[in-house]
Formats: sequence, C-alpha cells, structure tokens
Amino acid sequence: MQVNDFLNFINQVSIDCVIFGYQENNLKVLIPKLVLKGDLWTLPSGFIKQEESIDQAALRVLEERTGIRNVYLDQFRVFGEVPRTNKDVIDRIFELNQGRTDFQEIGEPFFDWLKQRFISIGYYALVNADEVIPHTTFFDESADWYDVDSLPTMVLDHNDIVAKALEALRINFDNKLIGFNLLPEKFTMKELQQLYETVYDKPFRSNNFQKKMLDLNVLERLEKKFTGAANKAPYLYRFKS
Amino acid sequence: MQVNDFLNFINQVSIDCVIFGYQENNLKVLIPKLVLKGDLWTLPSGFIKQEESIDQAALRVLEERTGIRNVYLDQFRVFGEVPRTNKDVIDRIFELNQGRTDFQEIGEPFFDWLKQRFISIGYYALVNADEVIPHTTFFDESADWYDVDSLPTMVLDHNDIVAKALEALRINFDNKLIGFNLLPEKFTMKELQQLYETVYDKPFRSNNFQKKMLDLNVLERLEKKFTGAANKAPYLYRFKS
Repeated sequence: MQVNDFLNFINQVSIDCVIFGYQENNLKVLIPKLVLKGDLWTLPSGFIKQEESIDQAALRVLEERTGIRNVYLDQFRVFGEVPRTNKDVIDRIFELNQGRTDFQEIGEPFFDWLKQRFISIGYYALVNADEVIPHTTFFDESADWYDVDSLPTMVLDHNDIVAKALEALRINFDNKLIGFNLLPEKFTMKELQQLYETVYDKPFRSNNFQKKMLDLNVLERLEKKFTGAANKAPYLYRFKS
Repeated sequence: MQVNDFLNFINQVSIDCVIFGYQENNLKVLIPKLVLKGDLWTLPSGFIKQEESIDQAALRVLEERTGIRNVYLDQFRVFGEVPRTNKDVIDRIFELNQGRTDFQEIGEPFFDWLKQRFISIGYYALVNADEVIPHTTFFDESADWYDVDSLPTMVLDHNDIVAKALEALRINFDNKLIGFNLLPEKFTMKELQQLYETVYDKPFRSNNFQKKMLDLNVLERLEKKFTGAANKAPYLYRFKS
C-alpha cells in the first residue's frame, strides 16, 4: 500500500472475505486480530481498484491479507445497512500506531477515507486449512483459525457476515458441489461424510450418504487406502472437476 | 429527480431490479423500454442515497420506476465486471432528448455521472402480475411484461442478470418458500403445482407434490372452491406467513 493508492479504489465499497477451512473435523474461519490495545478482530477486507473486476479484487484481497491463492471463492451477499462505518476503530488504530513508519508512509488521508460509510460485498473462500500458512498485514497483530461456533468479537457486522456466509455455504454445498475444496485431493467416503456432517451440523446415514454421493457421478474411485489396521481398507476417491 | 440530487448517491454503485410476475401460467419479467430511436430495453435501475440502506434503496427504486410497493424483494448477486458502463447508451439518450424540459432541469452533470463504471447490486422481486399497473419514468417509453424465455435485448449484462436471478429464484423457491408471493392470497393445490412447474420448467407428480407441500406445514386449508363445474371442488389454501 502506497500513499494515495486509495484514490484508485471505488469509493465506499469494500470486500469482506470469510475463509472457511476444515481441520480436525471442525469447520473453521481464518480471522486476523487488529493492532489495537484490547482484543478486536476483523474479517480480511479490502477494496476494488477501478481497473479490476470485483472477483479479481476479492482474489487479490485474499492473497494480500492471508497469503492464500488459487482457492474456491464466491460472493454470497452485500451488506449495506446505514450507518455502516468503522470510524471509531480507525481512529483508535491510527492513534495507537501513528509512530510507525509504514503508517506515516501511507498517510492520514487514507485513514480519513476509511472512515466513510462502506457497502461491503461478502465473499467466502474454501480452503484446505492444512495447506495454508496465514500471514498478516500492517493492520493485523496475528491471524488464526477459529471454530465457526466459537468466533471472537469482530468489528461492525462481521459476526453476522460469517453467519450469512455459513447459510450460503450450506445452500451451495449441494447445489454447486463446492465441499470438495475443503478436502485433500484424495479422501475416503467416511472423510467426505464427516465433512458434510460438520458443515450441516447433523448426522447422515452411511448407506444413504454413499448412494447419494455416488449417484452424483462426480467421484472417481481410486486405489484402496491401506493403513495397516485390522479393519477393511476403504477406497480413496477424487473429485472429477 | 432534481438537479444535483445525484451528488447524494453512493458513487459507482447501482441497483438493478428483476421483477418476476406470474400470469396465465407463465413466468414473466417487467422490463421498461428506453426513450431511444431503435429498440433497447433496460432493467428498472437506480442508485443508493447516503442516508438509506441498500434494501431501502431497492424498494424506492422499484416504486419510482414501476409504481410497485410492498412486495417480496431480495438481493441475489453483484455484477462487477470491468468495464461495466452505459456510456454509449447514455450519450444517445441525452442527444435524442436534450430538447425536453425535464432533461434540462436534471442537467448534464447527472448524465456525465451516469457514464462512469458501475457495480450493480441485483435484486429480484416477486409480484402477482394481475395486481400491478406498471408506470414509466422520464427514461422510459413504455414498460411491459415479457415471458422469461423470450426477453428483449437489454443494455449491458442485463439479460445475464435476469438469468442469474432465475437461478437464485429456483434455489430459494424451496429454501425460503418465496413462491407464494407470486400467487393470489387463496389458491388451489393445482394452481400451486402449476406455479412450481412453470418456475422449474418441469412436471411434478401430483401426489408427491401435494405431500411435500403439506409436510412443509406452511399451508392453511380453507373452504372448497366451488365453480359449478361437474368435477370435485378442490380446497383452497392460504400461506401461513
């Protein structure tokens, strides 16, 4: 971020990313913590350059804020209540950090610009959490994975944005078959079922689940997964993209 | 619209409304025709005032452009490709209409403002077409209902916006039970089934359909609908809102 870069952003429109990851049978969200005294978190957010589409902007924001690229990403809802402004938080961040060289390089006008009302386009991303090493930017103290049912307190309506993203994820999990983005390339039927049970927060019956998945005709059956255990080795599957 | 009203709009963000109506067993869309030589149509569109939420803006736009109020309305997708501008169309409209008093009152700066890149928030509305008398604004020559599978050529990506609205309608028809907004207050099971068959463009089996609808526990059974015909009088139903 350079001084006056923000003049090339579309005014009063932001992008908020809900990054879902799947780890140890839990659905998680990657959430940076702000550089503030007192604990306050925020979704990875950014803005749209005049010369890029909103999808391109979302991919760039995701990469800049978290180091994640080449992931499934889709918009799910716009958040446009009145007033929707981070004025107080921006003032506190600026006050606490104004001694920092990088803040001085960016300049105060950008922080004033940030205090406007923003309409935010919500995107959600699905990643295999084990393959991601989150990194932080000048606004963040840290960035960690949180269970979707025990999120920290975030700025503005960001907790509600995650709730709406989860609704959209559940609706699209079947309709768009996007769940495979949360798994490693090869997986067993049981691992797939565990993922569905985690996302929908309810059990499925094994026989029904297996039949439903195979009927979709999107799975390629691979070799068996031998673990050396006494029980029967299960088949591995791969998603036919 | 008064001169300089546009200075109070959020810059480069518009709202496009896809108004679905149901008439004579057809799913229709209300589409105004622009005041242009040559035939060009556009979705009812508008902008967001600084002091209103995006939902409030969408309701206002819908009423200003079509006279419709108190309807089911929901956002479904943002359209933000680059470049997304109506520059050529705006130039032609202004050239053809600059003699008009109402255009002079609005002033040229508004028309210049309209030529920017716009990110558009798509909303769809569901109305009972028989209860609506569409009216037009200074941009429109007329406004009519068109079958969803034989739409006229619209500006920009507006034909694609309708296609995406139809996808969202189908996904939410079951999930959010919004279809009842397209029917009169009281309806028979057969009328409800016809609506579903029209929206999904496929037949349903009567027994299965009736069981599924009754299992949802959202229908209140009313009196029978006596028509004087020889066949058995069907029950009327009402949606428990």
